[in-house]
Amino acid sequence: MTSFEQWLSIEPVAIDHSATEAAKQHQMQLTKPAGSLGQLEAIAIQLAGMQASSSPQANQVHISVFAADHGIVEEGISAFPQAVTAEMVRNFAHGGAAISVLAKELDATLDVINMGTITKLETLAGVTDHRIAAGTASFVQQAAMTQEQCQEAILYGRQHIEQLKQHKIELLIAGEMGIGNTTSATAIATAILKLEATEVSGPGTGLDAKGISHKAMIIEKALIKHSAQLTSPLTILQYLGGFEIATLVGCYLACGKQGLPVIIDGFISSVAALVAESLCPGTKQWFIYSHRSAEPGHQYVLKALNAKPLLDLSMRLGEASGAATVLPLIRLSCALHNQMATFEQAAVSGKTI
Amino acid sequence: MTSFEQWLSIEPVAIDHSATEAAKQHQMQLTKPAGSLGQLEAIAIQLAGMQASSSPQANQVHISVFAADHGIVEEGISAFPQAVTAEMVRNFAHGGAAISVLAKELDATLDVINMGTITKLETLAGVTDHRIAAGTASFVQQAAMTQEQCQEAILYGRQHIEQLKQHKIELLIAGEMGIGNTTSATAIATAILKLEATEVSGPGTGLDAKGISHKAMIIEKALIKHSAQLTSPLTILQYLGGFEIATLVGCYLACGKQGLPVIIDGFISSVAALVAESLCPGTKQWFIYSHRSAEPGHQYVLKALNAKPLLDLSMRLGEASGAATVLPLIRLSCALHNQMATFEQAAVSGKTI
Repeated sequence: MTSFEQWLSIEPVAIDHSATEAAKQHQMQLTKPAGSLGQLEAIAIQLAGMQASSSPQANQVHISVFAADHGIVEEGISAFPQAVTAEMVRNFAHGGAAISVLAKELDATLDVINMGTITKLETLAGVTDHRIAAGTASFVQQAAMTQEQCQEAILYGRQHIEQLKQHKIELLIAGEMGIGNTTSATAIATAILKLEATEVSGPGTGLDAKGISHKAMIIEKALIKHSAQLTSPLTILQYLGGFEIATLVGCYLACGKQGLPVIIDGFISSVAALVAESLCPGTKQWFIYSHRSAEPGHQYVLKALNAKPLLDLSMRLGEASGAATVLPLIRLSCALHNQMATFEQAAVSGKTI
Repeated sequence: MTSFEQWLSIEPVAIDHSATEAAKQHQMQLTKPAGSLGQLEAIAIQLAGMQASSSPQANQVHISVFAADHGIVEEGISAFPQAVTAEMVRNFAHGGAAISVLAKELDATLDVINMGTITKLETLAGVTDHRIAAGTASFVQQAAMTQEQCQEAILYGRQHIEQLKQHKIELLIAGEMGIGNTTSATAIATAILKLEATEVSGPGTGLDAKGISHKAMIIEKALIKHSAQLTSPLTILQYLGGFEIATLVGCYLACGKQGLPVIIDGFISSVAALVAESLCPGTKQWFIYSHRSAEPGHQYVLKALNAKPLLDLSMRLGEASGAATVLPLIRLSCALHNQMATFEQAAVSGKTI
């Protein structure tokens, strides 16, 4: 076994089921009809088990956004030009993007990592340069990444989490930006879930019906071309993925192996989460699902993960924006769990029938 | 016309449609695919129109919770004893209830108003005593309120909003607490929407199937007994409602007439909102719908209001807890609207196809 394979084979940390059970019992004592806070109870209970704590917390939150370009864009599968990836990295750094505003409002630290824009970017505050290459190759022509590039991206994700874990982060949010990456994620989901590309393909940043059908056709073509290689989650990721998607896979795997709760964003992040879970079953115990994306393929990925996200706001931006949006609800959920009075403390009568 | 009728006949303030339109245009300029923030865009646009502002705000938020008892509880329609209403008012005051925790976390001011618990309460910080009577009468025996009591409650809601309006509140949250009030609200919804009580009745704080069927039977009996009187929203409210529900109706009407945006909570609040809209069409322009309650009757009320709430978290607590839970999302929506860079400002390329 290579050291990469050795790392992959490490089991995810187990959830503390006694803490989960104690949190459930505690919720039953709080001054409200049992279950009446619905999913706000469930999140606190889930986080209590993850944090092995009677007092779940979501104060120290870090947001990492990984950006990279995709060779497949040359096939005309995106509504926006490829230049936008680098332009948006600048926008993240300058505070103008959705995730920049959300991070500031939520008092969360934000890291942007350039995993491979087509052109090198100038030095930008808050942006780490880790360009693996000038974008991936077009996956309809050849493998999007070499095996080495794919491993490098995954291991960067691992290293990123292992470093963050030392900074007492209570909860991680990871997201992505990359023109063309909806096509890459759609191809991965289609291959892993053995669906038709026409079922999974959607508008991404804004394709019309004709564009969606062209995108599905390109994906089908690639799946046929690489069919002999698309036999494992790892080769599917290498042949069809992107640097930022592979880095997310590495992050999610590391969250499982380190025992760090992570909020999953929308379609592309969920595809990375599905790859991570396929590579290392049980990793998903560390996932909190934020929102149901408007991107139609998301439903298949959520179903495969048996995921019930908290929000359904027709969002489809990426950049970790959906995961960030759910954070205040997780915080309220913790506050209610930790601060509400019990029936006994408040001298409130219980159920009679 | 009495002065009450004169007040009722005042038209709701009109939404500023030019501000709505300008906000829509502004959203199109922000650095994201058009529409990709989904309902987070829609809330900011809605609030911009309500506040006639290019910079919608939800910082100064006040939460009012109205509590009262219900004579119908003697029919055994609630899982909790009537004493809980007063006990929960104390719990609100002492900071142990869900809404107390939420108000603190959200930095919103909280007011609790006792509109009619069965027993008088000791003086409590943060609780205003405005007991109209020692609970309503049992509506299966007689009208729940006299005409005077119902008007007094509505006008108290009016006065409450007119006072708050002077304190530069940007957004109101109003909610309720009262053992038995799910039954009262179910009866009102059944009468207004001309449904069967068996369709609308649900578990409330936790009835089993037998309890729900008993509740529906009591409601049907009351609807038959009072059928000659249940001919207008006002008599339906008087015969079947409660002090806290009528006060909410007055609040919502006043929000419309004063032009104050208000977040509607769950089932009982939505029934009050439906009564307000029925009494004064157009009032609902001032409503922001927070969540879809787990109480099954809520769907009918939401449909009648053509309401699409932001959250669906299986909550069913009342106390304005659902409305409070959505507040952080409204705040994020405003922050994104007000702080994101435009394509031009950030020098990000637009769509090409």
